[in-house]
Amino acid sequence: MKQLRQISIIGLGLLGSSVSLAVLRTLSGVKTVGYGHHRATREKAARLGVVTKVVDDIRQCVSGADIVIVATPIRTFESIFFEIADVLKDGCTVTDVGSTKTLAHRWAEKALPGSVYYAGSHPIAGSEQRGAEFARDDLLYGAGCIITATRRTNARAVRNLKQFWSLLGCCVKVMTPGEHDRIFANVSHLPHVAAAALMNASNGGELKFAGTGFVDTTRVASGPANVWVDILLTNAKNSSKAIDRLVGQLRKLQKAVDKGDEKQVQRLLEQARSKRATLIKYKMRKKEID
Amino acid sequence: MKQLRQISIIGLGLLGSSVSLAVLRTLSGVKTVGYGHHRATREKAARLGVVTKVVDDIRQCVSGADIVIVATPIRTFESIFFEIADVLKDGCTVTDVGSTKTLAHRWAEKALPGSVYYAGSHPIAGSEQRGAEFARDDLLYGAGCIITATRRTNARAVRNLKQFWSLLGCCVKVMTPGEHDRIFANVSHLPHVAAAALMNASNGGELKFAGTGFVDTTRVASGPANVWVDILLTNAKNSSKAIDRLVGQLRKLQKAVDKGDEKQVQRLLEQARSKRATLIKYKMRKKEID
Repeated sequence: MKQLRQISIIGLGLLGSSVSLAVLRTLSGVKTVGYGHHRATREKAARLGVVTKVVDDIRQCVSGADIVIVATPIRTFESIFFEIADVLKDGCTVTDVGSTKTLAHRWAEKALPGSVYYAGSHPIAGSEQRGAEFARDDLLYGAGCIITATRRTNARAVRNLKQFWSLLGCCVKVMTPGEHDRIFANVSHLPHVAAAALMNASNGGELKFAGTGFVDTTRVASGPANVWVDILLTNAKNSSKAIDRLVGQLRKLQKAVDKGDEKQVQRLLEQARSKRATLIKYKMRKKEID
Repeated sequence: MKQLRQISIIGLGLLGSSVSLAVLRTLSGVKTVGYGHHRATREKAARLGVVTKVVDDIRQCVSGADIVIVATPIRTFESIFFEIADVLKDGCTVTDVGSTKTLAHRWAEKALPGSVYYAGSHPIAGSEQRGAEFARDDLLYGAGCIITATRRTNARAVRNLKQFWSLLGCCVKVMTPGEHDRIFANVSHLPHVAAAALMNASNGGELKFAGTGFVDTTRVASGPANVWVDILLTNAKNSSKAIDRLVGQLRKLQKAVDKGDEKQVQRLLEQARSKRATLIKYKMRKKEID
């Protein structure tokens, strides 16, 4: 990657602001320019100093940028790509940090000129908190970051983004947007859907008797509804298939319980217990959990 | 309740041993006599001193007891009740600490003589750990404890057990076994089933990308499989109905996602979020969570 001078960030929420703070801490001589759709967001970001400069115009924000990072809700990407397309510098690298990737690629291909490099990014650094006031310069440090590329993606886009996210301390992995969306429907969207369905399946009177098991199992259902609407609707087919798979497993266990088939109930619960033990061991080895 | 002198505990695992330790700390002048099916369990309990005295015979264990507490797997209750029935002292209070209650009541009615008082107990004090070595004299302190009674339950059984569990620091609530089993199928068994199904619905390769959301949502699936087999099979009808209800909610959300019905997806996720906020507020007010 050529010498970086300017990184422009569209969307100054928790993630966009945290990327900027990480850049400012890690990459000396690089300035960040930020834009947010709402005036209040821009004013807050300016007040908190999460970017070098806040601007009031999205096209002005990306002009001159070496890397543009779109950190807004997924379903705004298409119009943003169209809006910035003709002011992007030749050779600029464009990415987004959305949690689903197939549509992002489709929209980028449709809107962005051949003179810029696009690949998708999904830094797996969440928080239930929102807004620039919760931004942290170490949010990405040690986090996984998936870069997505299709057969039509320019190799330079992948190379530049690999280098960029690695500099910020991310563990980078490259896959296709299709593979990404299938995997994350199962390991991220499905737990959310299951937690929400579990909440909605119980009534208030019963919930007084809920213990820590119920509280933990439903934790992710407290996440912001609009973010999850965005995720589920931009990865609808995979999410729907994941729900089918979960329902299939629930019916299997239910059938064994209905028949009083002790061996089968034992086998299914033991399988779950042992798969989770493997998962926890893996995550601890990777130091992703304590 | 008359002056207590002896409390006998059948089953010297985590819960049985913790009850004994709480009794020894709280009720001066009361001795606890313990029995466990396996010799190794008895030897461990004796070595750790979790009861005043360990005996090798179950009938000897309960003889002379003012209160008998059965803390073994649920499906052993029937034969235990039959085994101890004719050595129980007149006026003795008998209870069990199983997590499902309908069958326990049915078996007690069938096996125990009219000269003793039986009601069910469900102290909601869990741990993923097992065995006397993890017993704690404060495990029950501040915990909820459901006492179950039918129309045929002697009022004295309820009164004695209310007093007993309260002395150990439990917040006691009385309900019918039917009500108990319906509620706990929803707030306790269903999260376990959902967590297990979620684990079984994902494959090992994908699980490498699981984040803290997945890890938390599936935590309870690490519980001991045989304990949960016991619970599900002794509360099969309610568990099966609870699964139907969860599947119903999953299908509702899936349908909205399939149709791209943004308003309905938003409504369902928002409903879950808001129900959980109410739950957390309630639990914090009750100081059950931080």
